[in-house]
Amino acid sequence: MSKLFQVNRETDPIWREIRHETEQQILGEPLLASFLHAVVLRHDTLEESLSLHLAQKLGAPVLGEIVLNEILQEALTSNRTVGAAIRDDLEAIRERDPACDRYSLPLLYFKGFHAISTYRVAHYLWEQGRSELALYLQNRCSEVFGVDIHPAARIGSGILVDHATGLVIGETAVVGDNVSMLHEVTLGGTGKDTGDRHPKVGSGVLIGAGAKILGNVTIGDCAKIGAGSVVLADVPSHCTVAGVPARRVGTCGDQPSRDMDHRISGYEFD
Amino acid sequence: MSKLFQVNRETDPIWREIRHETEQQILGEPLLASFLHAVVLRHDTLEESLSLHLAQKLGAPVLGEIVLNEILQEALTSNRTVGAAIRDDLEAIRERDPACDRYSLPLLYFKGFHAISTYRVAHYLWEQGRSELALYLQNRCSEVFGVDIHPAARIGSGILVDHATGLVIGETAVVGDNVSMLHEVTLGGTGKDTGDRHPKVGSGVLIGAGAKILGNVTIGDCAKIGAGSVVLADVPSHCTVAGVPARRVGTCGDQPSRDMDHRISGYEFD
Amino acid sequence: MSKLFQVNRETDPIWREIRHETEQQILGEPLLASFLHAVVLRHDTLEESLSLHLAQKLGAPVLGEIVLNEILQEALTSNRTVGAAIRDDLEAIRERDPACDRYSLPLLYFKGFHAISTYRVAHYLWEQGRSELALYLQNRCSEVFGVDIHPAARIGSGILVDHATGLVIGETAVVGDNVSMLHEVTLGGTGKDTGDRHPKVGSGVLIGAGAKILGNVTIGDCAKIGAGSVVLADVPSHCTVAGVPARRVGTCGDQPSRDMDHRISGYEFD
Amino acid sequence: MSKLFQVNRETDPIWREIRHETEQQILGEPLLASFLHAVVLRHDTLEESLSLHLAQKLGAPVLGEIVLNEILQEALTSNRTVGAAIRDDLEAIRERDPACDRYSLPLLYFKGFHAISTYRVAHYLWEQGRSELALYLQNRCSEVFGVDIHPAARIGSGILVDHATGLVIGETAVVGDNVSMLHEVTLGGTGKDTGDRHPKVGSGVLIGAGAKILGNVTIGDCAKIGAGSVVLADVPSHCTVAGVPARRVGTCGDQPSRDMDHRISGYEFD
Amino acid sequence: MSKLFQVNRETDPIWREIRHETEQQILGEPLLASFLHAVVLRHDTLEESLSLHLAQKLGAPVLGEIVLNEILQEALTSNRTVGAAIRDDLEAIRERDPACDRYSLPLLYFKGFHAISTYRVAHYLWEQGRSELALYLQNRCSEVFGVDIHPAARIGSGILVDHATGLVIGETAVVGDNVSMLHEVTLGGTGKDTGDRHPKVGSGVLIGAGAKILGNVTIGDCAKIGAGSVVLADVPSHCTVAGVPARRVGTCGDQPSRDMDHRISGYEFD
Amino acid sequence: MSKLFQVNRETDPIWREIRHETEQQILGEPLLASFLHAVVLRHDTLEESLSLHLAQKLGAPVLGEIVLNEILQEALTSNRTVGAAIRDDLEAIRERDPACDRYSLPLLYFKGFHAISTYRVAHYLWEQGRSELALYLQNRCSEVFGVDIHPAARIGSGILVDHATGLVIGETAVVGDNVSMLHEVTLGGTGKDTGDRHPKVGSGVLIGAGAKILGNVTIGDCAKIGAGSVVLADVPSHCTVAGVPARRVGTCGDQPSRDMDHRISGYEFD
Repeated sequence: MSKLFQVNRETDPIWREIRHETEQQILGEPLLASFLHAVVLRHDTLEESLSLHLAQKLGAPVLGEIVLNEILQEALTSNRTVGAAIRDDLEAIRERDPACDRYSLPLLYFKGFHAISTYRVAHYLWEQGRSELALYLQNRCSEVFGVDIHPAARIGSGILVDHATGLVIGETAVVGDNVSMLHEVTLGGTGKDTGDRHPKVGSGVLIGAGAKILGNVTIGDCAKIGAGSVVLADVPSHCTVAGVPARRVGTCGDQPSRDMDHRISGYEFD
Repeated sequence: MSKLFQVNRETDPIWREIRHETEQQILGEPLLASFLHAVVLRHDTLEESLSLHLAQKLGAPVLGEIVLNEILQEALTSNRTVGAAIRDDLEAIRERDPACDRYSLPLLYFKGFHAISTYRVAHYLWEQGRSELALYLQNRCSEVFGVDIHPAARIGSGILVDHATGLVIGETAVVGDNVSMLHEVTLGGTGKDTGDRHPKVGSGVLIGAGAKILGNVTIGDCAKIGAGSVVLADVPSHCTVAGVPARRVGTCGDQPSRDMDHRISGYEFD
Repeated sequence: MSKLFQVNRETDPIWREIRHETEQQILGEPLLASFLHAVVLRHDTLEESLSLHLAQKLGAPVLGEIVLNEILQEALTSNRTVGAAIRDDLEAIRERDPACDRYSLPLLYFKGFHAISTYRVAHYLWEQGRSELALYLQNRCSEVFGVDIHPAARIGSGILVDHATGLVIGETAVVGDNVSMLHEVTLGGTGKDTGDRHPKVGSGVLIGAGAKILGNVTIGDCAKIGAGSVVLADVPSHCTVAGVPARRVGTCGDQPSRDMDHRISGYEFD
Repeated sequence: MSKLFQVNRETDPIWREIRHETEQQILGEPLLASFLHAVVLRHDTLEESLSLHLAQKLGAPVLGEIVLNEILQEALTSNRTVGAAIRDDLEAIRERDPACDRYSLPLLYFKGFHAISTYRVAHYLWEQGRSELALYLQNRCSEVFGVDIHPAARIGSGILVDHATGLVIGETAVVGDNVSMLHEVTLGGTGKDTGDRHPKVGSGVLIGAGAKILGNVTIGDCAKIGAGSVVLADVPSHCTVAGVPARRVGTCGDQPSRDMDHRISGYEFD
Repeated sequence: MSKLFQVNRETDPIWREIRHETEQQILGEPLLASFLHAVVLRHDTLEESLSLHLAQKLGAPVLGEIVLNEILQEALTSNRTVGAAIRDDLEAIRERDPACDRYSLPLLYFKGFHAISTYRVAHYLWEQGRSELALYLQNRCSEVFGVDIHPAARIGSGILVDHATGLVIGETAVVGDNVSMLHEVTLGGTGKDTGDRHPKVGSGVLIGAGAKILGNVTIGDCAKIGAGSVVLADVPSHCTVAGVPARRVGTCGDQPSRDMDHRISGYEFD
Repeated sequence: MSKLFQVNRETDPIWREIRHETEQQILGEPLLASFLHAVVLRHDTLEESLSLHLAQKLGAPVLGEIVLNEILQEALTSNRTVGAAIRDDLEAIRERDPACDRYSLPLLYFKGFHAISTYRVAHYLWEQGRSELALYLQNRCSEVFGVDIHPAARIGSGILVDHATGLVIGETAVVGDNVSMLHEVTLGGTGKDTGDRHPKVGSGVLIGAGAKILGNVTIGDCAKIGAGSVVLADVPSHCTVAGVPARRVGTCGDQPSRDMDHRISGYEFD
């Protein structure tokens, strides 16, 4: 297994930081010391660490931990894009989630990061023509993390999926870079015909908890979708929409996904 | 254990097709070959296959796989209705879900089909007076699939539950035939008194993702409930409702559950 | 491990009742007899019973059942508040959930009670400075029960979390006593800055399924938040709000959390 | 799976007795009640009971419990011989082992009976040409019970293998009916050439603990091999041999395997 | 559960030493750090530590780890004798086994100590009239450790069972204090009648690997039984016997069990 | 992890043969197809295959499969000696065991090969100063395979351990090349003092089932130790010894370990 695209330990600042953080924690909680060592400290790269951690969560009698670990490692190191994406995801979570003050938290404990990383592997397998294995992983991801992402969907990097339970992303959906999605977000299809039928979400978009975006609609860059909204139509860039059905309620600045500001002007209680 | 109501392998076209599909897949993915053989190819009937698959997912130290398998098989072959219902469910999913181009996909990988089938077993046990076991299975179904259906609920056949996470169906709910429900749909009760307090959903109804229908209200045949809607009142047949609270927004044709058209007229973004 | 704060078997009417209920059930279902004995009948206190049951659900190779059981027992018996809270929770569920006619049902089978009890343990660990272990438990709770409660949140007693899947409660949220929350409720933050950014929910509040309350807003005592509502602003006491965004739709009486009346005046379908 | 050769519950006195014994025990030990119910009381036949029990012991991720149970059941009911043999084995143990006062003890707890029964299944598979599966079972039997019997060996009925650990029986060995073998007995080969190279043991033979019988030698009917003996030559019928190497030390009567008398005349300490 | 008979941490020199040894090891092997912490360092008493360790080895779906741990703890602290015996066993191993330079080695890694301790628990249960549970534990001990000791046997303290695999001790056997037994030793019965039929082994006896002692014979104090011997008759005190059948080959001094000298005068190769 | 010493797939005839054998078997037994693929066919080297297989057998919550697999791989590829030794072992088994007509049988199913390979890893760890991990592996090997080899022992290559249960090899034992040992062989110590106290076994030696060799004695090259013998003194080269105690009974030719001839002249029954 060639690992051409693994970032070196010395030159990977996120991995160096994760190791540093873990060294701090390991002394204080002996019950988790071997776990932290096995998942983090004994590895040279983030990819090895993440593979092992996911393989232990997703392993089952059907497909055991060791073989799954090898498949995950192969996928995570298969090209530059994947490695960059998971690092961008970690950066995104650290920056945007105030409850996250360490890179190691999402790596170790955040279902959203685990689920998106699993999707990245399933997507790789799908692209390689291993659809049965990809669908198997999609099912495991849905059972273990409560997140259902079709392996054919295309998702960019710098993605924050916070809390994650209930997230659904359909087969022909496309998600840009630096998007933040909360739990129970749906990028769903409409109609029973095959073909392009899921949303196209631009970059920098913030999608609030429970929002449903349905059909082959386009969400422009840096748009903001209010929590609980139902979106059945295109949303222009830098536009804030909210409500059931979603209506335009304002414009938004640079990258709402980075601000994580879920307030909607006009939503104040009178 | 008499299995009077099992469909014969030769005369069951769905089962024949599932076996055919699996024979195609098994060659391409050796890591899953034994899984596909054990779940599908070594069985004579769909009921045996489904029992084994669910037993392996729901088995736990409290109630091991072998005994659970026997209980599942007994329930699935107990009468004509159950066997017909799971076949209708498979047909419904294959027909209505564009991401599903094989009968074997829901059998193997779709949580919604797994959860509804588990409910069908729990309902059988409830009817037999084995309420403790039925409640145990409800809990396992909620833990493993994220779907909480009370075993006393009455649900017809030809049901599509897509993505499934978060589905809740209460004790006195009734659901007709050929209904499509997306994830996070709630058919919930209202009030704290026992008695009939959950929705009655007709046939051919489509309920969009995240819709909450609460109380002993009637949803007429072939109605359509928009995603994210909150329904606290009766909905006439062939009526489309949407919004929080749900308002009538149009009428709908034959069986919206079959079209899976989640668009709502008037929900386009201006 | 001193267990100063465990209620004695003779003087704990709920525990006595749970034992009595279980003795009735155990004869009818031999497949669950040892389970019911091990979880309920062989224990002197509710705390021992609940610890064992949760430890068997949350145990994993990282942290095995026996050690986890000891941690759970220590937390549940650490002070009077915790023991009182879980009893109030059981009372609340029994009183308010018509599908629950026995105290033993939530103890044995309700994910909501299991998740809130797990939170109570994680919160204790967080307060003791064992944050790594608390975050580990939060993750297990999210994986097993689909419920994500930050261990730093502060939650009162007499809490009913019905169905539970998808519940999210953030780091600086505060929840009063006698609150009822349905599944998919979010008490979420807004913005990316640390600090106080989650809702403060008073006592006696009822929050309907799928409602999202976001930001450092105050929900007054005995308010009622309609299902599927999105609340981004303060809600006065005894006020009923509903909609996306939530608007005031009425007032409500004593403690809506106790009535579990999800009907909203004005939400009838015309 | 036709089960032509299963003995009916009403007409199988051993099975009726086992059920009766178990009903007596189940009341006294609630921690084992569900185990006793699942292994014994819920079955109509001894074959079903034994299959389930062995499948739970020998199941592994490679070959799960449910499929293994089906294979075991098929083998145990494949012909009259197997069913008769396991009943004769149970009779033999009950009659000859003073520590065994119930038929249910070997069924539930005796490794020797479990190992011989596993061999009977592996032998059936070997005869059916499923050698890979037979060798897999041989390995599992050796790992779980410490008993290594080649599936091609031919072993009669009414066999007592007491304590069992370390028993080795080679590929071309033959064992008659009503033989008693203690733990650490070896019926081993000699030489490196394939072909008939293991002992042929007659009926009614008693082989003491740790005895090694090596090569294609014949042990006549009703012979007695002293504990710890090494036998490299034929032993006539009704002959007692002992020592390293084994020498004739006496004659023995009817069936030494039934008397279990391990005393050797001349072995008294002076 | 009253724990009257647990030795206090401060006043138990062996436990203090084990904790000290473990503190030394834990730094050097992070992969085992949590194991060492969970098994040793987080406990106040040897009994708690040993219970947890054995429960994790012997736990199974039939009887889970937590409940088994409680049963083990109850038995190990039930009276002064048991606690004293396991400490004497540890002393014996440390003193007599040159490969053992730490008390923590047998506690953590020696099957012989694990098996004898399991017997001590099964014997307690047998004495309490819980024979079904005792027989279940005997079976687990035989499967996991390859050691088959009937729970009714009576065994003293200061016992070294080195390597352990294959050890068999029958129902009416009695073993004194300060006995050393190697692997594959049998204290077996003879005849098929119930009643007193197993060896009575005095104190200070050394029994070499593979020795078989059969029948209700008496092995006097401080006797020495050569490896591979077969003993069918009484052996006087301070007497060395060896051979098949065993013959007197010398006398032996103080306590051969303490010297572990397996040499036999006259056994030198000419 | 540098893998300098792995033999290349193209240039490793044993590995090529194992792959070829497995390809033949995989078609006939679909239930084992994924197992055979995962253990054999998806690997480039024997070392990878063996690591995975042993890790799945020896993995436990204390030390999970993935990390154990890495440790095993590191040890098996650490130097030329280990890789050569396991290949010589496979050759030895194939050549000398008539029941073994394929290299893949010992790799997949023979406890003796699994145990010796585990020892080779434990010995490597011991040499690296990781004694705690080495002792942990020794214990796992004893529990799972019933084979107890001290990691400090020194064992050559071309070793056949047939059937394996009960094998014991002590701390200061040395075993040469091309040795065949049957089950229940002991290379044990004598005395309670540390230091050199175990046998030194030359090359080409055959040790029959159940033989006990005790103390710091020398077994010369190409000696043959009869089954069940007890050896307490040096044995010259090319010498056959047998009995309790072992006496010289003849001479033996080239390499008795290769002939596997367990017959002893003079041991015929008169």
